[in-house]
Amino acid sequence: MKHKIYIVGMGPGAEEMMTAQAYRILKESDTIIGYQVYLELLGEEFKEKELLSTPMRQEIERCRMCFEKAREGKKVAFICSGDAGVYGMASLMYELKDKYEDCELEVIPGITAANSGAACLGAPINHDFCVISLSDLLTPWETIEKRLRAAAMGDFAIVLYNPSSKKRADYLMRACDILLETVEETRACGYVENIGREGTKTKTCNLGELREQTVNMFTTVFIGNSQSFITEGKLVTKRGYDICNRKE
Amino acid sequence: MKHKIYIVGMGPGAEEMMTAQAYRILKESDTIIGYQVYLELLGEEFKEKELLSTPMRQEIERCRMCFEKAREGKKVAFICSGDAGVYGMASLMYELKDKYEDCELEVIPGITAANSGAACLGAPINHDFCVISLSDLLTPWETIEKRLRAAAMGDFAIVLYNPSSKKRADYLMRACDILLETVEETRACGYVENIGREGTKTKTCNLGELREQTVNMFTTVFIGNSQSFITEGKLVTKRGYDICNRKE
Repeated sequence: MKHKIYIVGMGPGAEEMMTAQAYRILKESDTIIGYQVYLELLGEEFKEKELLSTPMRQEIERCRMCFEKAREGKKVAFICSGDAGVYGMASLMYELKDKYEDCELEVIPGITAANSGAACLGAPINHDFCVISLSDLLTPWETIEKRLRAAAMGDFAIVLYNPSSKKRADYLMRACDILLETVEETRACGYVENIGREGTKTKTCNLGELREQTVNMFTTVFIGNSQSFITEGKLVTKRGYDICNRKE
Repeated sequence: MKHKIYIVGMGPGAEEMMTAQAYRILKESDTIIGYQVYLELLGEEFKEKELLSTPMRQEIERCRMCFEKAREGKKVAFICSGDAGVYGMASLMYELKDKYEDCELEVIPGITAANSGAACLGAPINHDFCVISLSDLLTPWETIEKRLRAAAMGDFAIVLYNPSSKKRADYLMRACDILLETVEETRACGYVENIGREGTKTKTCNLGELREQTVNMFTTVFIGNSQSFITEGKLVTKRGYDICNRKE
């Protein structure tokens, strides 16, 4: 029998926003491995388990630690914030798995910021949408630019992850400038800070205004499509129902 | 105080894949409203509540029922499968809300098929991705075509919702043909049937083979980006880590 490793999406942070399945897997595990910040989000009931981490940027070592602990016979859960399969560790685990043929992987999905942030803002991705990360740590900026242009051309609602960091203070502005090549300044937009954690804050604005905003790294940004609108502080993307002809 | 209505994403079907928050909201509600099929997915513990529905295609009436029940003083939960904000009822509720100023809406996010299906298949959307519905019930086919072309041009991983129905038996083939204008036939793809329900089935294939598949309406389709690969029946999209230079 193979050593099974669960790669678990813990959602935005609040324990209540984890699925029951994710919670059960964590409860059943001996060892929980993850980035230190995520381990700290876990409730008291997990503090007596073996909790292991590696520093930021040492993701490959963190993955290897999972395989090695599983080989020791431990029930291993590898936690990621949001969904483990959206900019999380799921794919890297599969990439590394060829060296660990005695191990088996299972991904447990979680609520990613596109969905949890959308819920805070109203309904910004209620039609076709794109998710794009502005981090160029692992992706060439040219690829990010190409995707922004394609997303605008396709009239997708757009979700931007990692819109800013200390070293990338002007990235959101650069992204907005690319979108503004084809999208009007008045396009409905919004963003959410600290989703599912203390101090959740939402703001709606238009694309021209979004360009001028200073957002932090705990922010998820939403750009509406041509059918989006703002109402009472909510950003809403129409599904296409003909509500004008509704019976009253 | 306004009458609050919760619009709840119940995830793919299995109760364990609901968030604890969604479960609590349903438990606390007096009245649960939703499409009949979704009401039937609810566990026994909800059967004594007031469960209400309207037939298929009568979504506007279903929304109005939520507002009216809330005005009667009932605690109303409006359930959608997956995430209520992804092709769900959240935006329509916000569109209709102007006639019900005494009501207030809150969206409770759930796991949508892009994430739950991805978990079954491995890690197909582990980088920038697009979600596109092939249903032309509410969206002109020309818009869908435009978005498929844009998604291919942007080298996004792509998730297709509603890839088929009785009336739209050839839509997946038509979508593949559009992608094949620019994407190679050998592009790694996969699909999942009955996510989070009995009879979950995954299959990996390439884009040329996907074109020939017959899929049903309970299927979610994944098309990899240029960095995707298939390994041991799993579809994986690389995040961009340099694993060749990893220390061994």
